[in-house]
Amino acid sequence: MENAVLKEIQPMSLQNHPGINYENLFNYSTMQHDIVAHVLTLGFVAHAAGLVYFAFAQKDIHPRLRTATIMSCFIMAAAALNLFRQFSSWNDAFTWQGSAYVMEQTFSNGFRYFNWFITLPLLLTQPMFVFGIKGKSFMRNTLIFVTASAVMVLTGYIGQMYEVTNPFLYWLWFILGSIAYVPLLVVLYRVYFVDRQKVPAHIEKLVKGLFYFQVAAWTIYLFAYLMPALSFTPNGVVTRHLLYTIADISSKFIYGVWLSYIALKISAEKGY
Amino acid sequence: MENAVLKEIQPMSLQNHPGINYENLFNYSTMQHDIVAHVLTLGFVAHAAGLVYFAFAQKDIHPRLRTATIMSCFIMAAAALNLFRQFSSWNDAFTWQGSAYVMEQTFSNGFRYFNWFITLPLLLTQPMFVFGIKGKSFMRNTLIFVTASAVMVLTGYIGQMYEVTNPFLYWLWFILGSIAYVPLLVVLYRVYFVDRQKVPAHIEKLVKGLFYFQVAAWTIYLFAYLMPALSFTPNGVVTRHLLYTIADISSKFIYGVWLSYIALKISAEKGY
Amino acid sequence: MENAVLKEIQPMSLQNHPGINYENLFNYSTMQHDIVAHVLTLGFVAHAAGLVYFAFAQKDIHPRLRTATIMSCFIMAAAALNLFRQFSSWNDAFTWQGSAYVMEQTFSNGFRYFNWFITLPLLLTQPMFVFGIKGKSFMRNTLIFVTASAVMVLTGYIGQMYEVTNPFLYWLWFILGSIAYVPLLVVLYRVYFVDRQKVPAHIEKLVKGLFYFQVAAWTIYLFAYLMPALSFTPNGVVTRHLLYTIADISSKFIYGVWLSYIALKISAEKGY
Amino acid sequence: MENAVLKEIQPMSLQNHPGINYENLFNYSTMQHDIVAHVLTLGFVAHAAGLVYFAFAQKDIHPRLRTATIMSCFIMAAAALNLFRQFSSWNDAFTWQGSAYVMEQTFSNGFRYFNWFITLPLLLTQPMFVFGIKGKSFMRNTLIFVTASAVMVLTGYIGQMYEVTNPFLYWLWFILGSIAYVPLLVVLYRVYFVDRQKVPAHIEKLVKGLFYFQVAAWTIYLFAYLMPALSFTPNGVVTRHLLYTIADISSKFIYGVWLSYIALKISAEKGY
Amino acid sequence: MENAVLKEIQPMSLQNHPGINYENLFNYSTMQHDIVAHVLTLGFVAHAAGLVYFAFAQKDIHPRLRTATIMSCFIMAAAALNLFRQFSSWNDAFTWQGSAYVMEQTFSNGFRYFNWFITLPLLLTQPMFVFGIKGKSFMRNTLIFVTASAVMVLTGYIGQMYEVTNPFLYWLWFILGSIAYVPLLVVLYRVYFVDRQKVPAHIEKLVKGLFYFQVAAWTIYLFAYLMPALSFTPNGVVTRHLLYTIADISSKFIYGVWLSYIALKISAEKGY
Ligand SMILES: CC1=C(/C=C/C(C)=C/C=C/C(C)=C/C=O)C(C)(C)CCC1
Ligand SMILES: CC1=C(/C=C/C(C)=C/C=C/C(C)=C/C=O)C(C)(C)CCC1
Ligand SMILES: CC1=C(/C=C/C(C)=C/C=C/C(C)=C/C=O)C(C)(C)CCC1
Ligand SMILES: CC1=C(/C=C/C(C)=C/C=C/C(C)=C/C=O)C(C)(C)CCC1
Ligand SMILES: CC1=C(/C=C/C(C)=C/C=C/C(C)=C/C=O)C(C)(C)CCC1
Ligand code: NA
Ligand code: NA
Ligand code: NA
Ligand code: NA
Ligand code: NA
Ligand code: NA
Ligand code: NA
Ligand code: NA
Ligand code: NA
Ligand code: NA
Repeated sequence: MENAVLKEIQPMSLQNHPGINYENLFNYSTMQHDIVAHVLTLGFVAHAAGLVYFAFAQKDIHPRLRTATIMSCFIMAAAALNLFRQFSSWNDAFTWQGSAYVMEQTFSNGFRYFNWFITLPLLLTQPMFVFGIKGKSFMRNTLIFVTASAVMVLTGYIGQMYEVTNPFLYWLWFILGSIAYVPLLVVLYRVYFVDRQKVPAHIEKLVKGLFYFQVAAWTIYLFAYLMPALSFTPNGVVTRHLLYTIADISSKFIYGVWLSYIALKISAEKGY
Repeated sequence: MENAVLKEIQPMSLQNHPGINYENLFNYSTMQHDIVAHVLTLGFVAHAAGLVYFAFAQKDIHPRLRTATIMSCFIMAAAALNLFRQFSSWNDAFTWQGSAYVMEQTFSNGFRYFNWFITLPLLLTQPMFVFGIKGKSFMRNTLIFVTASAVMVLTGYIGQMYEVTNPFLYWLWFILGSIAYVPLLVVLYRVYFVDRQKVPAHIEKLVKGLFYFQVAAWTIYLFAYLMPALSFTPNGVVTRHLLYTIADISSKFIYGVWLSYIALKISAEKGY
Repeated sequence: MENAVLKEIQPMSLQNHPGINYENLFNYSTMQHDIVAHVLTLGFVAHAAGLVYFAFAQKDIHPRLRTATIMSCFIMAAAALNLFRQFSSWNDAFTWQGSAYVMEQTFSNGFRYFNWFITLPLLLTQPMFVFGIKGKSFMRNTLIFVTASAVMVLTGYIGQMYEVTNPFLYWLWFILGSIAYVPLLVVLYRVYFVDRQKVPAHIEKLVKGLFYFQVAAWTIYLFAYLMPALSFTPNGVVTRHLLYTIADISSKFIYGVWLSYIALKISAEKGY
Repeated sequence: MENAVLKEIQPMSLQNHPGINYENLFNYSTMQHDIVAHVLTLGFVAHAAGLVYFAFAQKDIHPRLRTATIMSCFIMAAAALNLFRQFSSWNDAFTWQGSAYVMEQTFSNGFRYFNWFITLPLLLTQPMFVFGIKGKSFMRNTLIFVTASAVMVLTGYIGQMYEVTNPFLYWLWFILGSIAYVPLLVVLYRVYFVDRQKVPAHIEKLVKGLFYFQVAAWTIYLFAYLMPALSFTPNGVVTRHLLYTIADISSKFIYGVWLSYIALKISAEKGY
Repeated sequence: MENAVLKEIQPMSLQNHPGINYENLFNYSTMQHDIVAHVLTLGFVAHAAGLVYFAFAQKDIHPRLRTATIMSCFIMAAAALNLFRQFSSWNDAFTWQGSAYVMEQTFSNGFRYFNWFITLPLLLTQPMFVFGIKGKSFMRNTLIFVTASAVMVLTGYIGQMYEVTNPFLYWLWFILGSIAYVPLLVVLYRVYFVDRQKVPAHIEKLVKGLFYFQVAAWTIYLFAYLMPALSFTPNGVVTRHLLYTIADISSKFIYGVWLSYIALKISAEKGY
């Protein structure tokens, strides 16, 4: 990724276009362009194959706990199709011009954010089905999850539209979104440690581990949002897409497998 | 969405082309163009993933009530494929010209209207399978549903073709369509409150809620139709597609989940 | 569809190209172009969603009667993929030139005809599985169905290739095809009214109705073939594709649902 | 297909390009171009729909005989995807230039040959599962099938690459491939008439018939290979693709249905 | 593949672009270009059809051993989608210019490497589910498999980016990757010969054979990596893609079938 010369910026005018992601401001070396193409493809492929996995894996799980795995099927399908679109956006936007990849159509990360409107409520309520949380607690937690995640995603979506053109709005919306993140995390903690039914000791460790893993995976998305502030360069773009994909595979696929595994253990406990 | 300057209108000639949707008359900023791309993608993805969900969820439902869920599978498949086409129409129509997205091929909302010919009769008869409405009532309601919805969709389809070129026809067909909407709503009310079998009190609340939700979701489509009258601007276009997608996800996916949930509760009541 | 001026015909040379469908001879207004795009998409979407429907619906049918529903799955898959190709042919052939849609690549209806080689024998034998026709009658009917439909489709395929260039061949092949249609209809009548096993009175009405419906739906295809003779205009083209799509959805999807419904009723009769 | 004038040959240089199929040397009339497009689409669609059919049909077959039907699923999937690619190769290669279809990218039949490496061993071993051939005979036959078919396909693949540029190599490889075809046919005969378990008399007739049908279907591929020698014209090309598609549908789909039917009969015999 | 003249190299500048695969430096004859297209298509098709196969085949396997087959479904899906992308990269990169295929967009092998991050850990842990390796051994082996394969793939991915521009880095990363390969092979040996439960003698031979087959298949990838060093020519490129595809089909599909077969035998042993 040595082609420092490539970092040269496109017509200033682009900087006046709200909605423009900073990906559109650079030319890319083959290496830079291709790494992004490779990671976006990995994201797409991993979730599509994940759908196949969860579709078959659910047979072995107690019907009462199967809901979480069916939700993983939904999430995998949504993520795979959306990441395919995200890849296509990249592939269509940049064209090889003999010495660099140059923007011809605009690229946008917004497909990703919009997709979170439907995946986040599912990812958040999913463990409640496994941990046997029902009735009022379920309702209250769901309400907070849906509201807080919608606010967080909407503010994030608006904020990232200003990452090139308006640093003030970019940060303002980020801070507002981060505030919405707090109740979400608090309720998530309650789900994992307070509201849930008792489970055998050796499963408890798995549950605890999953909480920390989920929070870590989710937090990576904040760094992806912040990449223009951290590194306004083509390599910063590459890093952003690496972060996004690591976060995607962790927060949806690995998380889903982990949760299914817990459901399977509880199933076994119940003699299924 | 500040680029007021972009609202500048294309060659007058387009205004003489019946069938042209008002989307084709504007140039769009990246932000405007991309929001539409994002929401259409969300619509597509949500229904495709919804198909996956309903395909697996139906196992847990009493065979007698399963019909409604199989219908949701059909509706999800139809909506997903159609919205993918709707997105492609948008994607193919507009090209980035360095400072704005400019029309090169025509965009059309008509895929959506045509799709309603098959989805509306299903969405309307669906609850009758859950509420145990059969025989003569079923036949009579179905007849009215099919007729009224076909008239409504056809008039709406014709009307929207004149949204740019002929305000008189645009409004005339709208009013005719709205008249057809009335018997449809009346029969829908009968299905939810008069014809249906008794259900336990706590489910009754769910049923009532669904009626109001369904009517609200459907009514959003009227506002989408009316957008050229409400805001003949690029931002009006963006609003239209937001409305369409909110209406889509509510009237098909959330509605379907809600109905399945009622079916599941009735199943449980029957000891399945 | 007022743009009479558009009906202006392309370079005469095209009129010398055997194989050219008359769709290729016109320019189209947006309205005309889009209606065709919408109906072809509806055809594609309806059959794809129909595949999903029949795939799930078959569970409830007595294994002995299920064959007909599995055949509907095959027919839906074949029709959906083929109509997608038919739509792509339309979409690729015409390009918006600022004031009309103009042919750049040739459009062809022939995908449709070729597809009939495989769908017709299935559509014709399908009811025999439901009506319990076996052994010699089954063999004899199948033989006539396969032969007559192959002749009919082949002659029709050849004939439509001359719809622009050679009226004599166009009509000759049509007449030959129509002659092959006669034995096909006769045997179809036998299947519905002579060969089949007795069924309860209330089902008999459903069976009778299906016969008339099937014959009506099939006959629409003749009018689609004849459209160049009936209206050699862009609006004639639009009408043709409306006819094709009404015929498609009636003769495959609605027909298949109706037949499954009869199978279901007979299943219930047999206590499944 | 009267456009004799079109048969005019492209730049001589192409004749020096080993690997070029003779399809690339001609211009095509609409009729010629479209027939090829139609038959390749039929091939694709028939096998994709065939996959749907075999996927559902296998339920009714005795588990011990089901292997053959699962193999048909594999073969259908492989053929459908490959024929879609084969169609795309045709579609991308030729462009309408106002009076003829002219080559712009090269077309290749080689996708087809390569696909045979995986489909042939399956098609050949398939009947052994139905006829209950096991142990040593199974092993020995499989070994010969795999080896002979690999040699045959490889020599054929190489040979067809020289159909335009080097008649000597074209014929040499054809003869070598034909030699490999002999042991393959001998072993196939053994499978059908020598090695197999006894089956009831009325099934025996079905088995015999299948053998002749299979050999006939396979032999069509030789004529497709030989088309450049038989007719070095655009109409020869059309004939080739008709032959290929007839061979495809016969040797894979109809053959698979026939074999499944035999398996079903044997299942019934065993009281399943 | 005689067109030695074609080997002429593109603008030197390309040689300074890190990330460029050596595929981008050549023009290709039709034969060369097409063989690569054919083999990449075969790879895609074989794994897609393989998914269909494993999806149905798993029914016959003891639930406890089925995990390995579900993993094969995941691996097939991931490989098929990824190889389709790999083919598209080839197809988009090179365009026929009348006498040769010339690069217009860059081609990259990196999709392949990235995909290994998810397929390798699965391919390596898969046999442990069949051989009944659990608890501590399972954990320790998995840890080494995941770590060693991630290091190996990452170093290989980086190394191949320098195959054109920097021989030193190309070899350095290769050697580092090869070092990581060692523990991986050692643990694989343990899985096959030390850690696993006893199996009947005739199965033991199958297990042993699989080990050698797997190691051989995997090692082919090293030669594909080394092709620029072994033959810096268009024919070297062709050879590379032949090697890749042989390795793909062997290490995933044939390996998966073989493993399933062992699982089936063990199932039978357990009376399933
Ligand atoms: C706090 C915060 C953010 C957090 C985003 C998160 C936590 C996203 C998680 C996404 C997941 C889990 C997706 C799975 O499909 C934003 C929107 C980046 C910016 C605004 C502030
Ligand atoms: C009254 C009326 C309309 C109502 C449309 C509605 C109510 C559409 C509902 C669509 C749904 C539920 C689709 C799901 O797939 C039109 C046609 C806009 C215009 C004419 C007057
Ligand atoms: C008599 C006749 C025709 C009849 C066609 C019919 C009856 C087609 C039915 C098609 C169906 C049912 C397709 C379903 O996939 C042609 C060929 C138009 C022209 C020649 C004379
Ligand atoms: C003898 C011979 C041939 C025979 C090919 C055959 C018999 C192909 C069968 C293909 C099938 C059944 C495909 C199904 O997917 C070639 C290669 C044309 C040329 C070399 C000589
Ligand atoms: C040792 C070594 C390599 C080995 C690669 C292998 C062994 C790949 C196996 C891939 C498989 C099995 C893929 C299946 O999807 C590299 C990375 C080429 C280069 C660095 C040194
Ligand atoms: Na590109
Ligand atoms: Na996402
Ligand atoms: Na565009
Ligand atoms: Na819709
Ligand atoms: Na077009
Ligand atoms: Na059809
Ligand atoms: Na073309
Ligand atoms: Na083939
Ligand atoms: Na190309
Ligand atoms: Na791979």
